[in-house]
Amino acid sequence: MSSFWTDTISRLTPYVPGEQRSGADIVKLNTNENPYPPSPSVLQAIQGVSGDQLRRYPDPESVVLRQTLADYHGLSIENVFVGNGSDEILALAFLAYFTNNKALQFPDISYSFYPVYCELYGIEAKTIELDADYSVNLERFDTHAGGIVFPNPNAPTAKDVSLSSIEALLSRHTEQVVLVDEAYADLGAQSVVKLVGQYPNLLVSQTFSKGRSLAGMRLGVAFGDASLIEGLQRVKNSFNSYPVDALAQAAGIASINDESYYRQTMNTIIQTREHSILELKARGFDVLPSAANFVFVRVPNDYCEGGAAGVFKKLSDAGVLVRYWAKPRLDEWLRISIGTPSDMQKLMNTLDA
Amino acid sequence: MSSFWTDTISRLTPYVPGEQRSGADIVKLNTNENPYPPSPSVLQAIQGVSGDQLRRYPDPESVVLRQTLADYHGLSIENVFVGNGSDEILALAFLAYFTNNKALQFPDISYSFYPVYCELYGIEAKTIELDADYSVNLERFDTHAGGIVFPNPNAPTAKDVSLSSIEALLSRHTEQVVLVDEAYADLGAQSVVKLVGQYPNLLVSQTFSKGRSLAGMRLGVAFGDASLIEGLQRVKNSFNSYPVDALAQAAGIASINDESYYRQTMNTIIQTREHSILELKARGFDVLPSAANFVFVRVPNDYCEGGAAGVFKKLSDAGVLVRYWAKPRLDEWLRISIGTPSDMQKLMNTLDA
Repeated sequence: MSSFWTDTISRLTPYVPGEQRSGADIVKLNTNENPYPPSPSVLQAIQGVSGDQLRRYPDPESVVLRQTLADYHGLSIENVFVGNGSDEILALAFLAYFTNNKALQFPDISYSFYPVYCELYGIEAKTIELDADYSVNLERFDTHAGGIVFPNPNAPTAKDVSLSSIEALLSRHTEQVVLVDEAYADLGAQSVVKLVGQYPNLLVSQTFSKGRSLAGMRLGVAFGDASLIEGLQRVKNSFNSYPVDALAQAAGIASINDESYYRQTMNTIIQTREHSILELKARGFDVLPSAANFVFVRVPNDYCEGGAAGVFKKLSDAGVLVRYWAKPRLDEWLRISIGTPSDMQKLMNTLDA
Repeated sequence: MSSFWTDTISRLTPYVPGEQRSGADIVKLNTNENPYPPSPSVLQAIQGVSGDQLRRYPDPESVVLRQTLADYHGLSIENVFVGNGSDEILALAFLAYFTNNKALQFPDISYSFYPVYCELYGIEAKTIELDADYSVNLERFDTHAGGIVFPNPNAPTAKDVSLSSIEALLSRHTEQVVLVDEAYADLGAQSVVKLVGQYPNLLVSQTFSKGRSLAGMRLGVAFGDASLIEGLQRVKNSFNSYPVDALAQAAGIASINDESYYRQTMNTIIQTREHSILELKARGFDVLPSAANFVFVRVPNDYCEGGAAGVFKKLSDAGVLVRYWAKPRLDEWLRISIGTPSDMQKLMNTLDA
């Protein structure tokens, strides 16, 4: 606290990311990182960036990267925006599209950065309760909202909503921007990127941090109608002209161009996830269906002393990191990222011990 | 333009960076890039980052990089903040410290991103006129301001202000934050980083883009009292937890640790600058004294048709890029970055031709 802090600083409750403990014996299943490294061609692309490229500013408009992403999805470059991770894209999108003096709606159990952005910019938030089975129910959203944002699949529940239910929402809610946060794309949920062009108020964000194994690089992408992307560009160019550095641009292009590596990695994660769900259920846990690279697991009351918090603590002491929130409706649950088969075996062994 | 644009988007006039034209024959003296590549140890550090590091989130607090910077300047880690280029740091600092409903003061000829941040956040701006000789006169700043920001040396004039005049300002102006933007540090101006700890309202920003040849990497740093840095961290952690990627952290540490390469590069640039000033003066140009890696050059009315705009155009057509602004008090001037001796010789040859 300082006498120089403005109201803006003072009102904040910053986002707290998962613990980044590291070490040879640590099994890190707490931040939804990909257990597999990025494609070898990504590492080659990084090593191919010269000192001469580093001394110069990167392309502020990331033209080649955006064109590569446009081609991949059958869109135009005007439909594509890139940023310093999808968190920065969300931060810029909230500033661009949700500072309209109307309440922004998002699920009450969802990505915990959304209410933080609202505090930062003074946006009124209206949370929409999940159904009893922890599903996002898009019919509960108010069509007179100042905007709508939700992850698909949702975090930390891992449950997805159908493409048709999002289309129905977009048909009802035409006055303000609908932001679909697809951080966990390509793991089972249907993407709405294909709807860009049909709905002028649809904005979709994705990230290279999860499926594309580049959390350490910071690269996110948004897709939308050209005028929505132009609005994001205007805000970006009023905040930081060059958020995506030369190495991230090169790495992103190489990642998109190695489709077979990506699909192989994603298939392996999905297989490991489905096997892990069976293993966890066999141990008496409730597990929600997952369209993500993590599972949301309820710890039965009689499982052990302290319930989910107790399991979290015991796993952490044994070097197996998962995520736990001491909050209403979440405090019986653990979010467990999908690691390698060996990581998951260590988790099961630690649970059994 | 779109019906979904908020007032925030609509009121913006985004910052326009210098042209990033490239090619073997282009002499690029328009964005104040360093003509020399980063230290070989920086490239080694980048190549040493593994796929396993890239698949994981970077340290959100950049602890090793911040400690390295703290040691270098004789400060504590609590006095050091890092971000995605100094532009992001300025953007976060404006949001943190200047959204206090009082006018922010900065020189009327200065870094053209300051008024853009003010538009983005709705901050009232009060510009303070330069002296007739294009000096920043800190005695003109109002002690009841909502905050003060100025570059030292100033851009695009390259003129610096003395340490004692900044100390006098800090002694007068104790109620709000004074942000000294040292993007062009170590090229002749006296740094106020050594005053951190003495003045609780002093915030200093620097960048790795200029002297440290890492414009392509995006890395900036701020120094200040621990409570000011904590305020920046709170805003950063409410915007984007991980703005500095694993490669930028590794590169920044390696750069700071190769002091001799840095000093050698800076000395060469200073020598080239002083030689270039003599050469430009010999050709009839007025040149302001420079404490930066660029010079601010007035084109005499009788120099050629079209004055400064004409010279700018002819240089550009010949592949020599410099910066020109068609604005009052700037439209007789060119800003010319200091390149290699060979770059500068090509500039002189083109001027002569």
